[in-house]
Amino acid sequence: MTNASITPLIMAGGAGTRLWPVSRDSMPKQFIQLLDDGLSTFQATLLRVKGEPFGRPIVVTNQEFRFVVAEQMQALGIAGEIVLEPERRDSAAAVAIGALLARRQDPAAVAVALAADHVILDAARFRADCTSAAALAATGLIMTLGIVPTAPSPAYGYIEPGAALGREGASRLSRFVEKPDEATARGYVGRGFLWNSGNFVFAAATMIEELERFAPEILAGAGAAIAAATVDLDFVRLDPAAFATIPKTSIDYAVMEKTEKAGVLAAGFDWSDIGAWDSLHAVAGKDAAGNVLQGPVVAVDSADSLLRSDDMLLTAIGVKDIVAIATRDAVLIAPKSEAGRVKALVEQLKRQGRPEATEHLRMYRPWGWYQRIDLGARFQVKRINVKPGGKLSLQKHFHRSEHWIVVRGTAEVTLDGQVSHVHENESIYLPIGCTHRLANPGKIDLELIEVQVGSYTGEDDIVRLEDVYART
Amino acid sequence: MTNASITPLIMAGGAGTRLWPVSRDSMPKQFIQLLDDGLSTFQATLLRVKGEPFGRPIVVTNQEFRFVVAEQMQALGIAGEIVLEPERRDSAAAVAIGALLARRQDPAAVAVALAADHVILDAARFRADCTSAAALAATGLIMTLGIVPTAPSPAYGYIEPGAALGREGASRLSRFVEKPDEATARGYVGRGFLWNSGNFVFAAATMIEELERFAPEILAGAGAAIAAATVDLDFVRLDPAAFATIPKTSIDYAVMEKTEKAGVLAAGFDWSDIGAWDSLHAVAGKDAAGNVLQGPVVAVDSADSLLRSDDMLLTAIGVKDIVAIATRDAVLIAPKSEAGRVKALVEQLKRQGRPEATEHLRMYRPWGWYQRIDLGARFQVKRINVKPGGKLSLQKHFHRSEHWIVVRGTAEVTLDGQVSHVHENESIYLPIGCTHRLANPGKIDLELIEVQVGSYTGEDDIVRLEDVYART
Repeated sequence: MTNASITPLIMAGGAGTRLWPVSRDSMPKQFIQLLDDGLSTFQATLLRVKGEPFGRPIVVTNQEFRFVVAEQMQALGIAGEIVLEPERRDSAAAVAIGALLARRQDPAAVAVALAADHVILDAARFRADCTSAAALAATGLIMTLGIVPTAPSPAYGYIEPGAALGREGASRLSRFVEKPDEATARGYVGRGFLWNSGNFVFAAATMIEELERFAPEILAGAGAAIAAATVDLDFVRLDPAAFATIPKTSIDYAVMEKTEKAGVLAAGFDWSDIGAWDSLHAVAGKDAAGNVLQGPVVAVDSADSLLRSDDMLLTAIGVKDIVAIATRDAVLIAPKSEAGRVKALVEQLKRQGRPEATEHLRMYRPWGWYQRIDLGARFQVKRINVKPGGKLSLQKHFHRSEHWIVVRGTAEVTLDGQVSHVHENESIYLPIGCTHRLANPGKIDLELIEVQVGSYTGEDDIVRLEDVYART
Repeated sequence: MTNASITPLIMAGGAGTRLWPVSRDSMPKQFIQLLDDGLSTFQATLLRVKGEPFGRPIVVTNQEFRFVVAEQMQALGIAGEIVLEPERRDSAAAVAIGALLARRQDPAAVAVALAADHVILDAARFRADCTSAAALAATGLIMTLGIVPTAPSPAYGYIEPGAALGREGASRLSRFVEKPDEATARGYVGRGFLWNSGNFVFAAATMIEELERFAPEILAGAGAAIAAATVDLDFVRLDPAAFATIPKTSIDYAVMEKTEKAGVLAAGFDWSDIGAWDSLHAVAGKDAAGNVLQGPVVAVDSADSLLRSDDMLLTAIGVKDIVAIATRDAVLIAPKSEAGRVKALVEQLKRQGRPEATEHLRMYRPWGWYQRIDLGARFQVKRINVKPGGKLSLQKHFHRSEHWIVVRGTAEVTLDGQVSHVHENESIYLPIGCTHRLANPGKIDLELIEVQVGSYTGEDDIVRLEDVYART
C-alpha cells in the first residue's frame, strides 16, 4: 500500500459515431456537452480526478484533437501532459504509453485508466472506489472497475468475479465474457456478474510487467514512440514510425484476459458509457413526462423522449419513446429502442459519401473555428472566429478570391507581404493567387465573414506556406 | 344550358398553418411544391382549368401574395386577372367579387370557384364534372362539387343530397352538416352523404341574386371595392375602405345554407384538401414500404411515414406512421395520427413570439428573394437574389452599414445619386445613412452576399424613398 497519489490516465482519442449527428469524426462525443452541466464528458472526467487522491493527469488523444483537448483543459484551469497519437489505435497502446510515462515520473506510480466519454455522477464514491482499488493495485493487482448491472443489458461485456480479496466489493477476476444476448445476460446478472466498464486501476510497474509478458511488441512500440517523441507546443507528439508498429488491440485482449493478476472491484457509483442516444436519455435530467429536452425544443403531449436541437426550432406532437436530434445540417429520428443502430446508419452515410457523416459544419482549428453559412455554384460564405492571439497559416489559393468583412474585433491581414489592420465594419479583398495570412492581434475574438468566389471553393485548395501550429 | 366557357375563379388568399413548418403565413401551402410534379397546388389548379371548357381565370388573393401569384402564373404561361384583397376575408368576399367580375365580362357567365390548395389528380374527370355542373348552373342552380367519402372522416363537413336532378350524380342539396365525430360520420357515409369540397359551379347572375337576397352588405361592399379599385402593375387592387365593410364569413354561411337553389354533384375524381401532413402522405407517391420521401432523406427500416426535408439531411431508423418535416430553421415530428394538431402548435409558437411560426427564412419580394444566412449580436448576413430587371427600393438605414459582394451577375448600384456597376467578385460599401438602390440590369439572376454591420439589423430599419413596386 502506498500513500502516493493516483495518476489519472485519460483516454480521449476515440471517434464514436453512435451519438451522430452530434458526435462525428471531426468532433467526437467526449468533447461535446451532452448533459446540462455545461461540460463535455472529457471535462467532467478531468474534474472527477482533480485534487486528492489524484495527481497530474496524462491525457492520451489523437493528434487531430489536440487543440480541443488543450482548450477544454485550459477552460477548467487544469494542467497535464497531453500525449498525441499519430493515428488511431485501440486501448492497449494508450494504456502502455500511459503506464510508461507514469513510471517515468514515479517508479511506484499507481494509475487509473479512464475513458473520457463515460458519465459518473457520484464523484465522492468514485474517489473512494479508486482509493480502494489503488490500495489493492499497490499490492500488484490490476483492478478492473466493475459495475453492478441495473438491467440484463446485452450492450456490455461482463466480468465474473472470483475469490474475495478481503476488501469490500473486491475479488479476483475469474473471467471476462463477451456481450451476451439478453437471456444469457439475465443469467449473468443472477449470478452476480458485473459490467466491464473498461476502466482500470494498476501500478504502472505491474502493467508494464504484464505487457512485457503477454504483449511485448506493444510495450516495445510504446517505448520507442515515447523515446523518439517530440515536444510540439504543449504536446508530447509520439513518434509516428514507432507508433505504427504497435498492434491495434484492446488492453482487455492484450493483457486483462491473460494475466493472473486481474482483480475486480464492484464499484458503488452509477455509470454510463452513453453508448447510444437512449443511454443519454437514461442519464439526463427529465421533465415530469419523462422527456429530456435540450436546446430550442417545443414538445406537446410527448413522453419519455429525448429531443435535442443545437440551433433550429425542434417541435414534436404526441411522440413517445423516441429520440430526435437536430443539428444545423442533419437530423436523426428513431425510436429509443432503435438508437443502437445509429452507428450502422453512419457507416451507410459514409459509403454514400455524405459529408455530414464525418464533418461538422463548425470546424475547430488551433486558432478558433470556421463554419460554412452558405454555398453556391461558384461561391461559399464562411463565418470565421479567431481567438485573441490566433494566427492562421500563411496561405494561397489557386481557384478562388476572398472578401473578408470584419464584423467584430480587429484583423491583422498580411497580403503579399504588406501588413494592415482591418477593423469592425471594414473589408479587404484578397485576389486569387495572392499570399495572405489572417491574425487576431486584439484582446477580444475576431469575427469575420469570408465570401469566397471562384470556380472551386473546396477546403483542399490551400497551399500553406508557413504555420505557427506546425501544419505546413 | 350554355356553350360559353366556364370562368375559373381561383381563391388563393388563404394562409394555412396546418402544413407548418413548410407552410407559413409568409408563404402558405398553395404556393409551395408539395408533390413531386414540380408544381405548387395553385399552379396545378391553374393547369386543371386551362383550355376548353374553361375561360380566362380570375385569381383572388391577398395583396401580400401578389408577386408569387404573378410569378407562378408567368412560369406556366397562363394569363388572367389577379385581384388583390387588401386584408384577409373569408370565402364570401372572394366569391362575391369573382361573381361580379365574371358578370362584368359576360352577363351569362358561369363560374367555377376553386380553392387553390386542393389536390385533384384526374383532370379529365374534373373537366367532365365541371361541364356537367355548369349545364345545371346555367339553369339557375348553384352546384356544389360533393366528394364521395373514402372513409368516415371527422375532418370534413358533409352534404346530404336531396331529390335527384335527372343528371348522373346530381341532386338538390338537402342540407349541410358540420364536421361530425367519427361515429356520426359513419352514419353519414352509410346514408350517402358527400364531403363538402368547398368548390362550386354557378352562373354569376344567380350567385349575385342570392347574395342580394341573403347577404346584401357583402354584395354592396364587393361592388364598391371593385368600383373604386385601382390597377397597379398587372393587378386589380380592391379599394381598402370599401373592402373593409365586407363581413368576414364563408360563402357556405352567407348563401349556400340559405338558398333554395343549391344543388350537389357527386364528383367522380379523387380529391384532397391536404388539410394536414397525413393527407399529403395519403396523396403522394410512396415507396415499397409505404414511405413518402421528399428531399435529402435517408430512411432505414421505416414504413408508412412522410419524411420531408428542404435542405438538410434527414435520417430515420425504424420509424412507422410518423411525419417528420425538416426546414432550414424548424423541424416537426409527430405520429401521422396527430398531424391534425399542427395548427394548434403553431398558435402556441405564435403566442411565444417565435418568428419561425409565421416567417420563412427565405422571403420573396417583387424583385426576387432574400434569405438570412447568419446572424450575430451586431451583424447579419443575407443572400440576395435579384431577377433580371428587378429593382429594389431606393432606401436608407439609420443603424447599419452594408457590404455587398456580388457572387453572380452584375449589380447596378445607386449610392447617394451616383450609379455604378458591380460585377461578379467585386464589392461595394454602403455607409450608414446613405441612400442606395440595388438593381439587376442584366440577363441572368444577380446573386450577392450582404453583410450588415450595426447596432440594429432588424428588417424595419428601412426608409423607402422610392419604389417601382409602389411599396413606399
